[in-house]
Amino acid sequence: MERQQAEREWERDPERDPEAEAATRALLTDFYQITMALAYWQAGRAREPAEFELFFRRCPFGSSFALAAGLRDCMRFLRTFRLHPADVKYLASVLPPGTDPAFFEHLQGLDCSGVTVRAQPEGSLAFAHVPLLCVSGPLLLLQLLETPLLCLINYASLVATNAARLRLIAGPEKRLLEMGLRRAQGPDGGLTASTYCYLGGFDSSSNVLAGQLRGVPVAGTLAHSFVTSFSGSEQPQMLTPASGQGPPRNLSTLTESWLGKVCECLGLQAEEPHPGERAAFVAYALAFPQAFQGLLDSYSVMRSGLPNFLAVALALAELGYRAVGVRLDSGDLLQQAQEVRSVFRNCASHFQVPWLEAVSIAVSNNIDEEVLTRLAQKGSEVNLIGIGTSVVTCPLQPSLGCVYKLVSVRGQPCRKLTEDSEKQTLPGSKAAYRLYSPEGAPVLDLLQLEEEPPPQTGQELRVWPLDVSGGDCRSLTLTPASLEPLHRLYFHLGQMCEPIPSLAESRALAQKSLSYLSSSHKRLENPEPYQVALSEKLHALLESLAQSSQEGS
Amino acid sequence: MERQQAEREWERDPERDPEAEAATRALLTDFYQITMALAYWQAGRAREPAEFELFFRRCPFGSSFALAAGLRDCMRFLRTFRLHPADVKYLASVLPPGTDPAFFEHLQGLDCSGVTVRAQPEGSLAFAHVPLLCVSGPLLLLQLLETPLLCLINYASLVATNAARLRLIAGPEKRLLEMGLRRAQGPDGGLTASTYCYLGGFDSSSNVLAGQLRGVPVAGTLAHSFVTSFSGSEQPQMLTPASGQGPPRNLSTLTESWLGKVCECLGLQAEEPHPGERAAFVAYALAFPQAFQGLLDSYSVMRSGLPNFLAVALALAELGYRAVGVRLDSGDLLQQAQEVRSVFRNCASHFQVPWLEAVSIAVSNNIDEEVLTRLAQKGSEVNLIGIGTSVVTCPLQPSLGCVYKLVSVRGQPCRKLTEDSEKQTLPGSKAAYRLYSPEGAPVLDLLQLEEEPPPQTGQELRVWPLDVSGGDCRSLTLTPASLEPLHRLYFHLGQMCEPIPSLAESRALAQKSLSYLSSSHKRLENPEPYQVALSEKLHALLESLAQSSQEGS
Repeated sequence: MERQQAEREWERDPERDPEAEAATRALLTDFYQITMALAYWQAGRAREPAEFELFFRRCPFGSSFALAAGLRDCMRFLRTFRLHPADVKYLASVLPPGTDPAFFEHLQGLDCSGVTVRAQPEGSLAFAHVPLLCVSGPLLLLQLLETPLLCLINYASLVATNAARLRLIAGPEKRLLEMGLRRAQGPDGGLTASTYCYLGGFDSSSNVLAGQLRGVPVAGTLAHSFVTSFSGSEQPQMLTPASGQGPPRNLSTLTESWLGKVCECLGLQAEEPHPGERAAFVAYALAFPQAFQGLLDSYSVMRSGLPNFLAVALALAELGYRAVGVRLDSGDLLQQAQEVRSVFRNCASHFQVPWLEAVSIAVSNNIDEEVLTRLAQKGSEVNLIGIGTSVVTCPLQPSLGCVYKLVSVRGQPCRKLTEDSEKQTLPGSKAAYRLYSPEGAPVLDLLQLEEEPPPQTGQELRVWPLDVSGGDCRSLTLTPASLEPLHRLYFHLGQMCEPIPSLAESRALAQKSLSYLSSSHKRLENPEPYQVALSEKLHALLESLAQSSQEGS
Repeated sequence: MERQQAEREWERDPERDPEAEAATRALLTDFYQITMALAYWQAGRAREPAEFELFFRRCPFGSSFALAAGLRDCMRFLRTFRLHPADVKYLASVLPPGTDPAFFEHLQGLDCSGVTVRAQPEGSLAFAHVPLLCVSGPLLLLQLLETPLLCLINYASLVATNAARLRLIAGPEKRLLEMGLRRAQGPDGGLTASTYCYLGGFDSSSNVLAGQLRGVPVAGTLAHSFVTSFSGSEQPQMLTPASGQGPPRNLSTLTESWLGKVCECLGLQAEEPHPGERAAFVAYALAFPQAFQGLLDSYSVMRSGLPNFLAVALALAELGYRAVGVRLDSGDLLQQAQEVRSVFRNCASHFQVPWLEAVSIAVSNNIDEEVLTRLAQKGSEVNLIGIGTSVVTCPLQPSLGCVYKLVSVRGQPCRKLTEDSEKQTLPGSKAAYRLYSPEGAPVLDLLQLEEEPPPQTGQELRVWPLDVSGGDCRSLTLTPASLEPLHRLYFHLGQMCEPIPSLAESRALAQKSLSYLSSSHKRLENPEPYQVALSEKLHALLESLAQSSQEGS
């Protein structure tokens, strides 16, 4: 209750910045949607019933799969969609001067109460040409929604899929931390990245706002600036033992006494480890005695960071506390992790502090798929991997390329029949089913017209696989051992009809779905393409529309 | 006034979504900033005076330059920075249970009234290692600001630089439209992209919100969905002549009569052009008689889109209106533009409508630097180029990699002396100057300690060029013909002391600065690196800190 109160107070804050709400503003759209809206309206077609499908034509990164994501943001957008007076006024300023005022009245009255959305659930496996969203409603409004829906689905699905690839490489044991906020496309890019990397299989994020707003677990250690800001001349401070029993002890003094023993054990001079770095570790330990971590590479990992960490960790141990981790942020991360673990083992045994052996080793520094493959190899002593740039910016393919295509208007199927065969679309309002093998692995996604009866388990089906190259395709027959419809009705005439599962539930769905996908589809290099096929009826409709068009329609 | 009223009403809207303000929320930061804040606070160092510098280590995309951008967003963030009660409550939930409540009180009292920012102006040429921002203030707060400032500068400067490269390729005449909203990293990624592509040299954006909030000129045409939504059976509509004189005419009928003549001129059957496409063009023309544009490739450019466009354009011409443009969105764009222009010329002469010759030809469809080079070649008939994915996602290098490094604390210079020489930092509070040749071209950026007297025009200087590889560097002497300080004081102890220029002014500065840069630095392939050098005093400080560190400090 108190928090709600605070939120409300803040909403009344007169200094609030009108710039700051990009994510839910109706004008988050391309200008041509506005010009087309005017033309639809002028032609008396604004309220004609229409349906658009949102899909991608190729899976990203050369994968044979993608993860569907971004639906929660779309729902939020649709629920609050409204053109405010200031928005309409702005539009009037960029449209021709004589534009009919009734058009602007129409815009100002728009909301999504006539819109219905069927969609693949958040975290589902998704394949090319199978709609992620089927959106139906009045033509003019649906046209305005094109850009925001694409903006909200494209990157969310891309980054979730990228995260899923990295999870497949890392295997189930390594912990993956997303830390790309500073490299993302602005604040909301960072928030989207953190949300959907978690959905795609990461364990946590450095982004505090993603923790607060989306419930993503947050994690972090310390930075070089913290370490280098200490000179060693800082005031010593006192720490009470973990048990709460006994007087506070001077952690600095205790650390100095352990430093000598550690250096002796490691064969170093006690003057070698940097005193400023040690002071920084002591300060961090005083703030987090139960969760002490050290960043080892501000000066020299083996000659300074590691002995300083061990001295503080052993001083803490004397007071009954256990250090939890170290981080390496430069150099050969795997090699250093092996060396650090080996020192941990020696010291654990030498100083009889068995848990020291298992202190977590975190690594970061421009980790991409190739580096991750090495860090995840058998015998690697790395426990936690922080990935920033290469997960949030998706450098292998920085955009997904979803499109939003009109498939029917006034109940009539329609399609674009361009000379560029890859850009042709599939006509008509459609249903989609996933067909499974007896082993429970998905084998084919079937697209059919919405009015067709659903396929039946155990019954032979004749289907027409989509040929991505646009060439001739041949039919095949198959008998599904089981099947499921791919779309759920989330939004019906302006009302949410099913809650979007929590982020953690969607994350679990993604991992479960991936576990059923056959390894030939799942492998990241040259995977076997997953088949998507048309029903006989849909295929026949396609043929007839193509023919009528060739005859000059 | 009315608009302000509307904005205010909207701010009171109880349905406003607390999620939507990512861009100005103080928790838009990495969790380790919070843990370090606690450790600083615990060590009694929260208010120690400190200075951080924000810079990049390498220019993006292999260029020898970057454009500085994002300062306006940083100022907005700093002016409104505050941890709200709900934020502090969230932090308490993710920090250790026993954390001293006084720490949270400290957080809740934080604002930027102790912060000062010197920066390179928006749109300046910027080079590696020269700070874009010098931020001074209390240590704890400055640490919290690291992530948001990086987030706000990194992508803005990257995308502005990318836009500037594309402008250099396109030359000054071609109009460049940014249309990447649907491929950006979420809403704010799109808003940032549109803003800073304009700053970097684009002419306009498709993003309506960028028009409304940032004043970026918006532009757009129509989409395939609009064209394919018409069947040709729609109601005909009437249009009044441009002069306002005479009765309204039926534009559909008029178009049909022109279609015959156009098809005859082009050697086509009058049945070939698609009637639905023609109906769509008529509808668009009715909405925009003064600004009619056609999208030509929904069915077939030469056999349908172009004759339909010409029929509508000539019908409009009969009523005294001039069509303004066409767009091509698939196939060989250059080749088609040449063919379309040639048809325009023939028809202009054949039908005695001279302006038809010069109708604008716009192209789009995955245009990258390579395609743009071809489209911009001599003799190209393309007038406007729409670029989406490859400008907003910066696929050549999707992140800039700015860093934010502590350079002094309590007045003492400090630096990170890691074993990874590229990650070392330059100590001390610094001033920076740009030195120019007698011809007015920038030749070198000089970094010196802030307390040093500025270099003098016409006086010989000895400087130490930075060696990017981290190897030995040798001094050189030079005599600047002119020079200017690079940093301006924008924010002093919480107050803006100089307004950030308008976006259009910053855009003009960027183009002007680039025009002075020598072509050897400006070329995009293998440019000559631009020199950045240290003053003698700064070089000496660096040496002495390195030595004291080697001596085990």
